[in-house]
Amino acid sequence: MNYFSSKFKLGILGGGQLGKMVLYTTRKFDVYTCVIDPNKDAPARLACDEFMVGDLMDFETVVAFGKKVDVLTIEIENVNVDALEALENEGIKVYPSSKTLKTIQNKAHQKLFYVDHNIPTADFSRFAYTSEIDEAVENGGLSYPFVWKSTRFGYDGQGVKIVKRYTDLLDLPNVECIAEKMIPFKNELAVIVARNTCGDLKTYPVVEMEFHPEANQVEYVICPARIPDEIAKKAELVALKTAAAFEHVGLLAVEMFQTEDDEILVNEVAPRPHNSGHYSIEASYTCQFEQHLRAILGLPLGRTDSKVAGVMVNLVGAEEHTGNVVYKHIEKIMAMDGVTPHIYGKKQTRPFRKMGHVTIVDKNIEKAREIAEKVKRTIQVISE
Amino acid sequence: MNYFSSKFKLGILGGGQLGKMVLYTTRKFDVYTCVIDPNKDAPARLACDEFMVGDLMDFETVVAFGKKVDVLTIEIENVNVDALEALENEGIKVYPSSKTLKTIQNKAHQKLFYVDHNIPTADFSRFAYTSEIDEAVENGGLSYPFVWKSTRFGYDGQGVKIVKRYTDLLDLPNVECIAEKMIPFKNELAVIVARNTCGDLKTYPVVEMEFHPEANQVEYVICPARIPDEIAKKAELVALKTAAAFEHVGLLAVEMFQTEDDEILVNEVAPRPHNSGHYSIEASYTCQFEQHLRAILGLPLGRTDSKVAGVMVNLVGAEEHTGNVVYKHIEKIMAMDGVTPHIYGKKQTRPFRKMGHVTIVDKNIEKAREIAEKVKRTIQVISE
Repeated sequence: MNYFSSKFKLGILGGGQLGKMVLYTTRKFDVYTCVIDPNKDAPARLACDEFMVGDLMDFETVVAFGKKVDVLTIEIENVNVDALEALENEGIKVYPSSKTLKTIQNKAHQKLFYVDHNIPTADFSRFAYTSEIDEAVENGGLSYPFVWKSTRFGYDGQGVKIVKRYTDLLDLPNVECIAEKMIPFKNELAVIVARNTCGDLKTYPVVEMEFHPEANQVEYVICPARIPDEIAKKAELVALKTAAAFEHVGLLAVEMFQTEDDEILVNEVAPRPHNSGHYSIEASYTCQFEQHLRAILGLPLGRTDSKVAGVMVNLVGAEEHTGNVVYKHIEKIMAMDGVTPHIYGKKQTRPFRKMGHVTIVDKNIEKAREIAEKVKRTIQVISE
Repeated sequence: MNYFSSKFKLGILGGGQLGKMVLYTTRKFDVYTCVIDPNKDAPARLACDEFMVGDLMDFETVVAFGKKVDVLTIEIENVNVDALEALENEGIKVYPSSKTLKTIQNKAHQKLFYVDHNIPTADFSRFAYTSEIDEAVENGGLSYPFVWKSTRFGYDGQGVKIVKRYTDLLDLPNVECIAEKMIPFKNELAVIVARNTCGDLKTYPVVEMEFHPEANQVEYVICPARIPDEIAKKAELVALKTAAAFEHVGLLAVEMFQTEDDEILVNEVAPRPHNSGHYSIEASYTCQFEQHLRAILGLPLGRTDSKVAGVMVNLVGAEEHTGNVVYKHIEKIMAMDGVTPHIYGKKQTRPFRKMGHVTIVDKNIEKAREIAEKVKRTIQVISE
C-alpha cells in the first residue's frame, strides 16, 4: 500500500495529547488522518485531516469510524474491543490488535497472560469482588501488606492502593480486582519495544523512573537508566519476550521493577507511545511517535539509540490550585540549556493533573539531571 | 504578555510549508494561531486554530487579519508591507518589521542597504529597465559576464540569469534590475541569526551548500560547514553585523559567498525560517522554527549548537514527470541510518518543484554525507 498517497487513510481512536503528538509525524509524512474523540476540544482536533466527536466505548460508533480508514490505531486503551474485532474481520488493519487490547484492558487477564507466557511478574491473587479478599487473608492465602488493583480502568493514583490492614479494604470499591505481592525494588525501569508489520523488532534504551524520596511519585524519567549493563540487557530481553508473546505491532512500553536481588519483573504494559518515551522527541534518532507510525504502516523502523542523554519531568498541577492555568516562570526554564517545555493545552489546572512535560537534553547525563532539578524547582503550574 | 494563555493570538501571513513547520512549535507551546493564505488547501490550514483564505498583497485583507492578533509574523516575503506599517502604527507587533521587509523585497534596495551599512557584497549596478543595460556596457561601465537579477520577486531559477553576451539580454523581461559582478567562489555558506525582542542574539553554526559539480544546483546543505575555523568566525561576524543593521527580530538567514581569496560577501537574506536551517529539526538543540517563535515572542533563545552533524537534501520533482506525485523508494531511504523524510504534501509534481526534504543525521559528518548521497541516488519524486 502507498501510505504517501491521498488514497490512504489512518484512523486514530482518541484525540488526546498522545494522538496530537502522533499527528506531528503524520503531517511530516503527509499521511491522511481521521481522529475521533468524545471531547470536541480534544488537543488532536487540530492537525488531523478529519476530526469527529464520538464515544470510543460505543460499538456502532467505533465500527462506523473504523470502516472509513485503512489502518486503525489507538492512543488510549479504553475503547470498544468488540468493535475492533469486527473491523479486523472486515479486513481493516488494527494495531494494536483487539486480542492484545482485550488482554491488557483487564489487569487480571494481563497478569495471567504473563504467567502463561513465562514472563516474570509479581505474584498475585485474583478476586471477583474486593469483599472476597478478607476471607482469603483469614484463610492464610494472602497477607498484609499487598497492592490492591482494580482489574479495569486502573490509572495512576486511581484503581491502585497499598493495603496495609483490614480497614484499608473498607474504602475500596467492591469490584473485580487483584491483590499483588509488595515488591521492594531498587528501580522502576521501562523499555519501549517497536515491532513493525514485517516483524522487524527494535528496543529503545532502558529508562529509569526516579522517584521522589518522600512523595513516592515518579519525578524524572532518565535515559539511559543509570544501571549496570547486565541489568539493562536483562530488562531488554524481558521486554522483547513480552512484545513477542503479544505478537505485537506498533510500540509496546513495558514497565518493570528491578528487585532488591536484581530480578526483573514486568509491572504492566502500554501498547502505544508512552510517557516513559517522551524524552525521545528531543533525545533519540527516531522519536517514539514517528516510530509507532513507521511500525503500524509497515515502514522500516528508525534508529532507537540516542543523540544525547535525556531527562523528562512531568508538569502536574500544583496542589492547592484549581482553575485557569498559568505556567509561572516558564520563561525562566526556557533560558536554561537544552530545556524544551511541552504544554498540552488543557485550559484548567487541578491538583496533580498532568498538564505537560519538560525535556532536558545534554551530552552529559549528570548535567541534564542537574538542570532537570532546577526546572522542577522553578516552574509552577498554578491557577490565575 | 502571557503567551501561554488563551487570550494571546499569533498571526502568520502565509500558510505554506514553513508556516506549517512553525505551527508544530505553536502546538507544543499551546500558542493560539491564526493563519491566512491565498490557497484554501495550504499545508498550514491544519494545525492552526483559525485558518482563512485571503490575498497577502491586498492592503485591506492584511490589515483586517493583523488587527485580530497580538503578534504578526510571515513565512513569505511577498506581502503587503504598507499594511504591515499601518498595523505597526496601531500597536500590533510585526516581526520582521515592515521596514526590513520593504528593504528586502527589492533587490536593489537590499544591495544599497549593504553598501550603506558597510556590509561586504558583490559590486553591482542598478537599472530602471533591463533595456538600459546595453548602453552601460557600451559606455564601459559594465562588462560581460555578469549576473542579472530582477529587483522584485526573484526566486531560485526565476529572476536571476547569468548574462554572457548581448543576445542573452534579449530574452529577459524589461523590468527594474541589477547587474552584479560574477564572483568566483569556493563555497556558498549560510548563517542563521536569531534575535529576540529583548535584543538577545545567537547564531547557528555556519552551514555549507554543496553544489552538484555539473548541474550548478545546491545538492546538500551541510552542518557544520567543512571550512577552517577562521572562515567560519568571519562568516558569523558578517551575519551578526547584517542582523544588527536590520535591527532584526526573529530569524535572519544570511546567505554568503566565500570567495577564492577567502573574502565573505553577503548574497541575500531571508527574514524567517529558511531552507538552509531545515537540518536543525533533527540536528540542533533548538530547531529553527521553535527559535523563530521564541525570538518573536520575546522568550529566551534556545541553544543553537548541534547534537549531531546534519545533512539536508531537497526533494525536487524529477525532470520528466508532471502529475500526481509518487515518492518511489521512500521506504528504502527510511531503512537507512538516521534518515528522516519531510513530505510537504503537494499533490502534484512538476520538474524541479520542491516537494520535500530529507535530513540525515549522524555523530560522524562524513558518514551522514555518505548516506545523503545514497538517499539522493535512491528516492525518486515522479508522477503516477
